[in-house]
Amino acid sequence: MRLKCRVEYDGTQYAGYQIQPNGNTVQAELEKALAKMHKGEKVKVTASGRTDSGVHARGQIIHFDTNLSIPPHNWKRALDSMLPQDIHIAEAEEAAADFHARYDTIGKEYRYFVWNSREPDIFKRHYTTHIKFPLNVEAMKKACRLIEGEHDFTSFCSSRTDLKGSKVRTIHRASIEQEGAELVFIFKGSGFLYNMVRILVGTLLEVGRGERNPEELQAVFEARERKAAGKTAPPHGLFLWQVDY
Amino acid sequence: MRLKCRVEYDGTQYAGYQIQPNGNTVQAELEKALAKMHKGEKVKVTASGRTDSGVHARGQIIHFDTNLSIPPHNWKRALDSMLPQDIHIAEAEEAAADFHARYDTIGKEYRYFVWNSREPDIFKRHYTTHIKFPLNVEAMKKACRLIEGEHDFTSFCSSRTDLKGSKVRTIHRASIEQEGAELVFIFKGSGFLYNMVRILVGTLLEVGRGERNPEELQAVFEARERKAAGKTAPPHGLFLWQVDY
Repeated sequence: MRLKCRVEYDGTQYAGYQIQPNGNTVQAELEKALAKMHKGEKVKVTASGRTDSGVHARGQIIHFDTNLSIPPHNWKRALDSMLPQDIHIAEAEEAAADFHARYDTIGKEYRYFVWNSREPDIFKRHYTTHIKFPLNVEAMKKACRLIEGEHDFTSFCSSRTDLKGSKVRTIHRASIEQEGAELVFIFKGSGFLYNMVRILVGTLLEVGRGERNPEELQAVFEARERKAAGKTAPPHGLFLWQVDY
Repeated sequence: MRLKCRVEYDGTQYAGYQIQPNGNTVQAELEKALAKMHKGEKVKVTASGRTDSGVHARGQIIHFDTNLSIPPHNWKRALDSMLPQDIHIAEAEEAAADFHARYDTIGKEYRYFVWNSREPDIFKRHYTTHIKFPLNVEAMKKACRLIEGEHDFTSFCSSRTDLKGSKVRTIHRASIEQEGAELVFIFKGSGFLYNMVRILVGTLLEVGRGERNPEELQAVFEARERKAAGKTAPPHGLFLWQVDY
């Protein structure tokens, strides 16, 4: 039986999603919990994609195969009870035998949280990026409209990427919601390159600070090189919010 | 010169406010930072009162004396920069030479945060208490009205208290605010006994669950013994919100 789960995690204590030789990872915790349930047998977990160290998830999707005779509606609680408090199985259901959490993705939503105030909010320090200088939200919203649509996002992709293929992606929505000192940057798209959201946010923050005009985004796209865009924003403001199939 | 500061702290990583032989405390961090600023000389910090392990503060007030020639408006940043990220100096000002953070207190406000939903919110796990069963908020509000006023709070005081004097206190406000799944219990009063807010919340939660009628609060006060009240609610939902002088 193939299970599909929505997983929430607080990335603060993890060296990212994907298993690696050194450091705790979310995938390692999931596979450790599943191995316990399967009498030590290894169960491979496949996710919609990796997230970096410090990045969080509300809507990470995983799949795995199991021969345990647990009814699908009991899986959520069974697996959740084996996991640490900073990883939570929010939903679990049986999936088609050929469902694939990574290959079947048709779109994703990321949200990036900024705390824009002279004063920090220490209780949000792991979940928002604190920006002390005042931000021009209208200018950033203007720049967001230039991000929407189909573009070659080479300038917004980390040079450490191992992607060989096309860097053309479609962003269906790039917007900013404001509630008090909190700004939420929302990006929905067909797919995202390595560090793309963090580089988009870093560039928008330079627009918000008045270091760039919103119109410059056009030239950044055309440059097709990483150094044309702004700094990579820190990981802890970023949430993988939703994955669509 | 005597300095008065408002201090915010995330109590998650601390064994409470007050210095003790084993374990990190907020007071130890404050005194360590001040000793660094004073060339190793010990500077005693006095707070409005202690908070338990895991309890947070938005409005803890401290005072200390210094002979450094830092102008008062620079103290906030100077001391803040010496502190870890989970302790923040929110305000700093010169106080009268005889100001006393503990003895001059005329009232305090505590807030207790509950996340009332079948599903946890893992990003609030250190700052709210998760209650899965449905709560009758109207019944708890009714009980809150019986808490307001002057009472002998012996039943709501931990038996581990070392207080010899009167346990009569006046609660000016006991109320509950609801926003979605989050409930905020607000208590303003002339003074609070050891564990008093957590025992009040624990008792209110038993009312909310239907295990007690709101009217029973009257009998709990009259019993004047700890076991008449409900369980002590966990520390991590509690915030020292404000101290009045």
